[in-house]
Amino acid sequence: MKVAVLSGGVGGARFVRGLVDVVDPEGVTVVGNVGDDLEILGLHVSPDLDSILYTLAGLGDEERGWGRADETWNALDTVERLGGSSWFRLGDRDLGLHLVRTEALRAGEPLSAVTAELARRAGLAVRLLPATDDELRTWIETPAGTFPFQVWFVERGHRDEVDAVRYEGASAARPAPGVIEAIESADVILFAPSNPYVSIGPILAVRELEEAIRGRRVPAVAVSPLIGGRAVKGPADRMLARMAGGTTPAHVASCYGDLIDVLVVDEADAHDLENLAVRPVVAKTLMSDGDARRRLAETVLAA
Amino acid sequence: MKVAVLSGGVGGARFVRGLVDVVDPEGVTVVGNVGDDLEILGLHVSPDLDSILYTLAGLGDEERGWGRADETWNALDTVERLGGSSWFRLGDRDLGLHLVRTEALRAGEPLSAVTAELARRAGLAVRLLPATDDELRTWIETPAGTFPFQVWFVERGHRDEVDAVRYEGASAARPAPGVIEAIESADVILFAPSNPYVSIGPILAVRELEEAIRGRRVPAVAVSPLIGGRAVKGPADRMLARMAGGTTPAHVASCYGDLIDVLVVDEADAHDLENLAVRPVVAKTLMSDGDARRRLAETVLAA
Repeated sequence: MKVAVLSGGVGGARFVRGLVDVVDPEGVTVVGNVGDDLEILGLHVSPDLDSILYTLAGLGDEERGWGRADETWNALDTVERLGGSSWFRLGDRDLGLHLVRTEALRAGEPLSAVTAELARRAGLAVRLLPATDDELRTWIETPAGTFPFQVWFVERGHRDEVDAVRYEGASAARPAPGVIEAIESADVILFAPSNPYVSIGPILAVRELEEAIRGRRVPAVAVSPLIGGRAVKGPADRMLARMAGGTTPAHVASCYGDLIDVLVVDEADAHDLENLAVRPVVAKTLMSDGDARRRLAETVLAA
Repeated sequence: MKVAVLSGGVGGARFVRGLVDVVDPEGVTVVGNVGDDLEILGLHVSPDLDSILYTLAGLGDEERGWGRADETWNALDTVERLGGSSWFRLGDRDLGLHLVRTEALRAGEPLSAVTAELARRAGLAVRLLPATDDELRTWIETPAGTFPFQVWFVERGHRDEVDAVRYEGASAARPAPGVIEAIESADVILFAPSNPYVSIGPILAVRELEEAIRGRRVPAVAVSPLIGGRAVKGPADRMLARMAGGTTPAHVASCYGDLIDVLVVDEADAHDLENLAVRPVVAKTLMSDGDARRRLAETVLAA
């Protein structure tokens, strides 16, 4: 079975981890968001790709939800003492990956090739691809100003309400090698339970990629990131309320228009399916442990 | 009293540390070697400037002789696992400094400004200047090929005999702001007990800097890095034997020509002062502890 999954960071990574328990990982291609990539301290950081890599390789810190387990913070401690940018929390083990990636990118390798090599070294069986090798950056428009995604999300603690989301560079961005092929050869296309605006949105902003999904001959299934109208973590619910007008399954589905055929919603949202333009599937979507992750993946594939 | 010191890494750093115990550090300008700077893992590393900074700030690992005390190696461990360049040993705390420097350089700041800010943050009272803000790199010609300095020194463990040393970029390199002023206003110019070819040589390769020393109206005093014709550490003795024809004080002094007036030599070399074209001063030059460092500095200044 061949599966293509569009995924953001933490939530998507957990979803894919459940998925590879129920299908052969060799058939899975994860298309990751790069809209929240950033250049900091001279390094190229790809937080969503890394969350997926760390989670699938069993290297991630499950409790913190991001970064590496068994982490130390000595480099950033020095950075802070020397007056450098320390608002983006980079642990020592995590830094090692960014150093390797940055060196390869500066040597002219495309992000997709670097990511493939990192995934291979980390022992990943799934194929992990950035949506694009081109520079595509998410900007957040708020009443307090317009910010690069990570400045809004991390430095400002996503405290500002969001008026609009912009994907800079999207119109010129081409899908990374392998992305279109993965979508066109998939038996099913999945949208992980990630933030529609800042995780899945930047992926779909790559025009050829969106067109490939629009031209699909297989089902596309999205998993809602909301449970009872609330985000498990992060600002997805506030963003939906403000920009889509609400947090029901219909509001979530509206973000994806005719790009999906099925929306998997949590039991807590099953009472509120009116105006939903796609077929609903009700499941327990909280990925609290390995069993829960596997059950969700089974339900999604059965849909 | 105003002192200008030309210095390489470890040996020079220890010498300066003794110096600031006997003169007001505010009057001391250290002109550091950048010929062994390197770009690795996307970072700009200035090993000699950092050895001086760490040593003077009390942050250095005295036993290892380089890098930070209380160091961890988690980033490099990750780099190694991911197949990146790990031959140049960068500890986590050390990395923090390289990240800050690299970010500032990429933002267009000159190395001298970055170095001044790092020194200020680290609490240094002496002025620390790179010899030049321009790219000047030491290359080592050996029977096995020609290598960038750090490849020969660290990656190949300086096992190859040296036929010649080349300073790439030297002819176009200008002294960093403040260097000429420091030399011209100094009451004495010191050459630290560093390797004449790969530590002091790249500094003197900056033409205007060499001319400023040549035109001095104050004494210039060099401290020999050899004790009994042997290097305390490193390949200086092998290089002198092969390229200068021997390891006596006269051979050491020949590296500096008429740029020095006095050579401070160790007691172990006092028997062998023939052919020495400059005035010798005999001292205990092994900087085994704080007292020894201070005594050496006093002797040098008295000379």
